Amino acid sequence: MTATHTAAQRIAGFTANLKAESLPEEVKDAAVLHVLDTLGCGLAASALGEASYVVSGADEGAGNGPATGIGVAHGLPAAEAAFVNGVLCHALDFDDTHPDSVTHVSVAVTPAALAAGEAAGADGATVLAALVAGNEVSTRIGAAAGGLFHARGLHPSGVCGVFGATAAAARARGLDAATTAHALGIAGSMASGLLEFLADGADTKRLHPGWAAQAGITAARLAAHGATGPATVFEGRRGFYATYLAGIDVDLGAGLADLGERWNTPAIAYKPYPACHYTHAPVDALAELLREHPVRPEEVTRLVAFTDKTGVDLVLEPAGDKVRPRTPYDAKFSLPYCLASLLVRGSVEVASFTAEAITDEAVLAVTPRVGYETREYSPRPDAFGGGVRVETTDGRTFEAQLRYQRGGMENPMTEDDVRGKYRANAGLALDAEAVRELEDAVTTLGERPGLGFLAAVRS
Amino acid sequence: MTATHTAAQRIAGFTANLKAESLPEEVKDAAVLHVLDTLGCGLAASALGEASYVVSGADEGAGNGPATGIGVAHGLPAAEAAFVNGVLCHALDFDDTHPDSVTHVSVAVTPAALAAGEAAGADGATVLAALVAGNEVSTRIGAAAGGLFHARGLHPSGVCGVFGATAAAARARGLDAATTAHALGIAGSMASGLLEFLADGADTKRLHPGWAAQAGITAARLAAHGATGPATVFEGRRGFYATYLAGIDVDLGAGLADLGERWNTPAIAYKPYPACHYTHAPVDALAELLREHPVRPEEVTRLVAFTDKTGVDLVLEPAGDKVRPRTPYDAKFSLPYCLASLLVRGSVEVASFTAEAITDEAVLAVTPRVGYETREYSPRPDAFGGGVRVETTDGRTFEAQLRYQRGGMENPMTEDDVRGKYRANAGLALDAEAVRELEDAVTTLGERPGLGFLAAVRS
Repeated sequence: MTATHTAAQRIAGFTANLKAESLPEEVKDAAVLHVLDTLGCGLAASALGEASYVVSGADEGAGNGPATGIGVAHGLPAAEAAFVNGVLCHALDFDDTHPDSVTHVSVAVTPAALAAGEAAGADGATVLAALVAGNEVSTRIGAAAGGLFHARGLHPSGVCGVFGATAAAARARGLDAATTAHALGIAGSMASGLLEFLADGADTKRLHPGWAAQAGITAARLAAHGATGPATVFEGRRGFYATYLAGIDVDLGAGLADLGERWNTPAIAYKPYPACHYTHAPVDALAELLREHPVRPEEVTRLVAFTDKTGVDLVLEPAGDKVRPRTPYDAKFSLPYCLASLLVRGSVEVASFTAEAITDEAVLAVTPRVGYETREYSPRPDAFGGGVRVETTDGRTFEAQLRYQRGGMENPMTEDDVRGKYRANAGLALDAEAVRELEDAVTTLGERPGLGFLAAVRS
Repeated sequence: MTATHTAAQRIAGFTANLKAESLPEEVKDAAVLHVLDTLGCGLAASALGEASYVVSGADEGAGNGPATGIGVAHGLPAAEAAFVNGVLCHALDFDDTHPDSVTHVSVAVTPAALAAGEAAGADGATVLAALVAGNEVSTRIGAAAGGLFHARGLHPSGVCGVFGATAAAARARGLDAATTAHALGIAGSMASGLLEFLADGADTKRLHPGWAAQAGITAARLAAHGATGPATVFEGRRGFYATYLAGIDVDLGAGLADLGERWNTPAIAYKPYPACHYTHAPVDALAELLREHPVRPEEVTRLVAFTDKTGVDLVLEPAGDKVRPRTPYDAKFSLPYCLASLLVRGSVEVASFTAEAITDEAVLAVTPRVGYETREYSPRPDAFGGGVRVETTDGRTFEAQLRYQRGGMENPMTEDDVRGKYRANAGLALDAEAVRELEDAVTTLGERPGLGFLAAVRS
């Protein structure tokens, strides 16, 4: 690798030459655990009928092919399967995030790696390499710009995810470095995803990773058939950063210097709860207190949540709306609802946010007893510190806090936590045996002869 | 239509309610002539094997469906057919352009309208309305920003084309206004196309209209199945203009005020020659002189081209390269080559730019006799004025100039010109009877019960 290589060529060289057998164990372990987590999120979404338009849309217009879409009975063309899975796996907003790049990594990379691998008849080791390549690429391209894409109105899970998806698809189908570089150049002309959904809660947010995954499959396919992309797609004056972050200098080179030496895959953070990040630490603090001091809901006179002040407008105010969420989506942004769910049901999981669950009067009886105080936690954007104080009828008070929400490097979810999350999610769609078999297959991905086991997630 | 509608809602209302029978005749006539021109360009590209990666790529990974891809034997899913056709029809850069928006309009709109129409079993009148809707939408969204997208590094044929393609697909499948507005909102998250291909001549330029057409079909399909897009996709602070043209105020509202009253479709300009715009006026000037004063190549001692000074570095210098083009693409940017081709062969057409044609010694014997002088023509970016002086062995000189290149509103190509161009292009791929039948079918599109006639363009 010399200085005469462009960034796309460096990324392509890394991607094309990545082999599962030379990856550190913790990188491989993290990669398969993220596949499990991602598929679980998609299966839960499918079971709940979330984003069902991608499934009925695929039935109408996707055609047939060799790849698997979650909840789609027939095989799909690889690009369409990647789209369906990318959307479903992100639909509950329960999937992983890489903090430094503020990117939902796996929901673009995993669908692209799996669908391209199925279409190419790739073995598990190849797909494992593809997954890691995709993770490393998406995270570096995003991290070079930190939160700048968000500030500009662009969703990194789409605009950065397309490059990781392309790398994953290219590696899964075994493209050489030169062809992979062209695929990345082509992907630059497919990078998209506006944040305007924030104005009215439109579905486009969940479409972005799916469209990125579909584009990644398509870019790799075009390059494999001889189409060329610009070598300077990243650093060129009409390239990705110069165009999408006009006026800002972005240096991708530094982030690429340790490609293949430092690994981002283990730093991708899991989400413990399918709710806003600002609810996580208070909910985990309450879980800790309830393990030490079991109390019944009727014994609790008051719950006082602690949060950074930026969390208040997201999950605590206006108080009237938070006490009685109008929609499942509202409930994910109500800390009173999340704390009450844990206190009453012992859990905050996907099933806690159905249209029926949010009208549960036992939970709604508790939400008015939730107050809050603001505290200063770590200013790091991915810290999301918080806590809770419990006051009981017999005058006791208990208090706990987390400086860092659980799921990231500073406060990791254990492997058992992640597997438990997968089982609860997948169990909404599959029977216990299928849940277990899929878990076994993904866990041993690197030794699998192929991806036939994915058939279990078809409807 | 009230002020409370967003731009997307206004466009959607126009699109959903547009009927072929209430369109002015000249709008309908222009619309079908542009379809003919577009299909001719795609057929020529297919015959020459240009962008063949989309055809072999579709064979590999697109699946089967009801829609027609040029040069693809089997039916394709609508989105994939739209992609193949969008790329092929733009591959020779011989397709139309709307001057005010600097957008290649038809190569995104026509493929989307046709593929969505085929998949929906739409009649010709519906498809005609879809075409006009798409043209009006792409041109207005582009014209609101003039050349600003180019300056930012974005290709309007992609980023604006996706909205026209979406409108066309939505109308072809009969979506109502509310659903069409969602489709447009979704399309905003699919708008893409970097100009970085300018750095090394990569294929991405030709991919952009195809990807826009594919995205348009997909956006309409998702909306039809219930997915929502942001209503404020155009004017929102994280919307299309605010994000892609950050820091610049763009007012789309003015351009929408006369939707349905003033028509842009007849203002879309045809390209008379498959070569750089700066070659067109001198070539047409020479054609005019040769009609009045027929001279044999050996009687010409010198040809002096007149061009605006901006044209010099594109089509005249460095002189050594222009005298003997190295590739067909080079030849399209050589005014000496184009003038010599006309003088020697009597034509400048697709067949003039094959790898074999550019080594024709009879033509290359003339290119060294071409010189140039710069003159000032209209500063309008779409004027492309120019001319030529012919000096003969017997001492005569003839001179002609065009203030505006032929093809646009000020110096239109006649209907016969456009039909002749179509016949020459389509004749490279189809036999004479098929060329005539397709021309008849497209010309009478509004009365056709369906689009079955498109089967003729499959391989």
